[in-house]
Amino acid sequence: MREDCHVCVAEGFSAQSRVKVCLGDRAIIATLSIVRDDWLSHQQAGLSDIAWQLLDAKEGDQAFFAHPKPVESMSAVRGKLYGKSLSQDDATAIINDINHGRYSDIQLSAYVTACAGNRLDKNETLFITKAMVDSGQRFDWGKELVLDKHCVGGLPGNRTTPIVVAIIAALGLTMPKTSSRAITSPAGTADMMECLTDVTLSFDHMRKVVEEQGACLAWGGSVSLSPTDDIIIRVERALDLDSEGQLVASVISKKIAAGSTHVLIDIPVGPTAKVRSKALAERLSQALIHTGTGLGIHVETIISDGSQPIGTGIGPALEARDVLLVLENHDHAPQDLREKAMALATKMLEMAGQGTTYECLQKVEEVLSNGQALEKFNAICAAQGQIKELPIAKHQETVLADRSGIVSFFNNRILSRLASLAGAPNAPAAGLSIHVKVGDQVCQGDPLVTVHSEAPGELEYAMAFYHEHCDDVLLIEPEVI
Amino acid sequence: MREDCHVCVAEGFSAQSRVKVCLGDRAIIATLSIVRDDWLSHQQAGLSDIAWQLLDAKEGDQAFFAHPKPVESMSAVRGKLYGKSLSQDDATAIINDINHGRYSDIQLSAYVTACAGNRLDKNETLFITKAMVDSGQRFDWGKELVLDKHCVGGLPGNRTTPIVVAIIAALGLTMPKTSSRAITSPAGTADMMECLTDVTLSFDHMRKVVEEQGACLAWGGSVSLSPTDDIIIRVERALDLDSEGQLVASVISKKIAAGSTHVLIDIPVGPTAKVRSKALAERLSQALIHTGTGLGIHVETIISDGSQPIGTGIGPALEARDVLLVLENHDHAPQDLREKAMALATKMLEMAGQGTTYECLQKVEEVLSNGQALEKFNAICAAQGQIKELPIAKHQETVLADRSGIVSFFNNRILSRLASLAGAPNAPAAGLSIHVKVGDQVCQGDPLVTVHSEAPGELEYAMAFYHEHCDDVLLIEPEVI
Repeated sequence: MREDCHVCVAEGFSAQSRVKVCLGDRAIIATLSIVRDDWLSHQQAGLSDIAWQLLDAKEGDQAFFAHPKPVESMSAVRGKLYGKSLSQDDATAIINDINHGRYSDIQLSAYVTACAGNRLDKNETLFITKAMVDSGQRFDWGKELVLDKHCVGGLPGNRTTPIVVAIIAALGLTMPKTSSRAITSPAGTADMMECLTDVTLSFDHMRKVVEEQGACLAWGGSVSLSPTDDIIIRVERALDLDSEGQLVASVISKKIAAGSTHVLIDIPVGPTAKVRSKALAERLSQALIHTGTGLGIHVETIISDGSQPIGTGIGPALEARDVLLVLENHDHAPQDLREKAMALATKMLEMAGQGTTYECLQKVEEVLSNGQALEKFNAICAAQGQIKELPIAKHQETVLADRSGIVSFFNNRILSRLASLAGAPNAPAAGLSIHVKVGDQVCQGDPLVTVHSEAPGELEYAMAFYHEHCDDVLLIEPEVI
Repeated sequence: MREDCHVCVAEGFSAQSRVKVCLGDRAIIATLSIVRDDWLSHQQAGLSDIAWQLLDAKEGDQAFFAHPKPVESMSAVRGKLYGKSLSQDDATAIINDINHGRYSDIQLSAYVTACAGNRLDKNETLFITKAMVDSGQRFDWGKELVLDKHCVGGLPGNRTTPIVVAIIAALGLTMPKTSSRAITSPAGTADMMECLTDVTLSFDHMRKVVEEQGACLAWGGSVSLSPTDDIIIRVERALDLDSEGQLVASVISKKIAAGSTHVLIDIPVGPTAKVRSKALAERLSQALIHTGTGLGIHVETIISDGSQPIGTGIGPALEARDVLLVLENHDHAPQDLREKAMALATKMLEMAGQGTTYECLQKVEEVLSNGQALEKFNAICAAQGQIKELPIAKHQETVLADRSGIVSFFNNRILSRLASLAGAPNAPAAGLSIHVKVGDQVCQGDPLVTVHSEAPGELEYAMAFYHEHCDDVLLIEPEVI
């Protein structure tokens, strides 16, 4: 608004004021920018893109501006800071206010901070999860058994989902998988799948694919399962702050909203993974199971090795290649990815009551080996859209070992950053191929990592970063004879 | 910046990105707004008023834009959330980063929240106070004894400061008082003093007044004693969250920066004051004394009655009138204000080693009664600038008692709000006159409160608020015979 416009002066608004904007039956709370000059006339207000969208505003519409009421649920947040536990009513009010955009960034940050440092107990986590489930839509697939999996993340290349979905669906069970795109990582399952077929499906299209094939591999963003969660995650990222309770609420609420009944959660543990110790992983596991059970779904967890990347490729197309190699039973298929996907699928079958561990493993082995899983995967891709050729990066550079010895350590975080700098996931062919695993013996001059980029500038940028951090990316210990 | 400008695209900036802007040897971190259309050309960036100012930018200057480095001291804030105490190095790094504008609102909120709920222990409070002292300038008055007082606030009309300053200076001691303007209250000492003389003094002018008169009564805003504190307070206010440790750091650091050696702090306690219980007041008192002592100044506190307003007037001119009545030994001078100012002045003399309590009280009584304090006050006003006539509000309305009985309760918060709605402090003559005190016997029809406004609309608005809350403003209990 103009500094001297009638509304600004009468209401006492100033720069950065929180302002309630009403248009028809819609209302948002916005942060005010004040302009001078004649960008706007006295009777005009400008809106940001997101405000136009949320208010469904059109040029020439009349809007009303006022001070927003104080957000009452903030008193529960203040209470929490003074040691009072959150009740179900508190949690419902907080999530409802966040969902309706009533929290400013400063208030959101206070909420996230108040919950951080393991300050949410089991009950509070359950209350918040329930509030998040209640605040959004919830899918109903009309089936008793709806399987799902989730990985808490932090491990590059860990692209088991498409393989697990193909196996589960090939065995006749239902697994309507929605996945995210990468936010800070070099690839999400949705980014990887988009190298092979369409992932931005309407809900009707998704339902049709699941009815025909028993499964889908779609992007979850077009069906907003937990809008509140997206708002909270943005602030957690800005603070680089994980709240265990908030993580549990995020994962479980999304699975319940997706209509899942049986959910397996992969928790990779390693010094450079998201979860850094077995003890933390076990506490997280208990919280996930407690919350899921409390809200009527069957949750189990697998605490897995997070000490190094899974598979060979990091980046959308490079990970897709690994997935296809496993499904095609190719000689060069990465065995760690194959084994991990099989372990997850086996555990999910067990959860779904499909037999003993041994029987389930046999079923998994069979549909993977006889090509039924590949066939199912191709059918899902075809049902979702046009099948695409995997792109190959124009610019590649391979890093060679500068000494001989045994590979002893990978830094997942630095590898992820390197792949991002190379252009992943925006450039689908960009990323890394990792040629060695922990325990491998290498000789000086052996290839370690190939960096793939679609633009020479990005390759240069990534290589400069590599040379700056080469001692941290991976370690080669001298062999003791 | 334009969405499609070269810098935006190359650096990967998007709306709300944090961006480091460098110009010459100055740098700020700003939040990016993205525009389309031709408001800006491809090689142009627009700046907010405050950014122009901080960068000392001129139309046509060339600036550089980049992603800011992650704020390293945030890891200490995260550590604090996970139960790790802040060290002196942590506190120094945090305050330094806040002072240089490196914390976003989200990060500031996390810091404030991490410190809230009495989570700062005595040492952490001391470390933060020291960091705040070190981050700003510090006055040196060249005297061994520099007296100061402070009130933690929340009590309307409690305008003891000008009286205390006049008494102390009349007794030949040094008290270079800087005060704040009202932020959420109906008047600050600077607002009240501005009804009588100039308060916006240059530092040289202030020093000249103090050298001549031994004291001043200036606005502290023109000499920024603690820029970091202003940044933190803005976020605390948005969250409606007080952190005891942060309050202590704010008060003590400002007093040390002001060059004070002996500081008396008034802590009014009452159900509707800022500090609501004696126990809280005593804990706060201990923290203030511990921190002041730790940093080499002499701090004492007075825990005072905060159950009702002090004096008759609430609002700049109405409070100034009370102050003058006391200094003039007028028959109608509010006795509670007189007594409280004398008690504070007496305690300060004692702290300064000017004799026993009885001797100090006698000295105070003497300079107040014989007009030396008034003379000193007038001399200070004259040294600061032109003497002004007190304004009188054009529009007044008096609320009468609707029943007979004994006044038993005042709500300080609602009275403050009422005075603000009447126009205080922006309209200097606006505010309230309170005609009764707790314990007074009133008859139906007796005047209780007069509302003063400079505009008829404001009077109407305030009266509407009064009638909506009349049962909460004050209570009249039936007399038991």
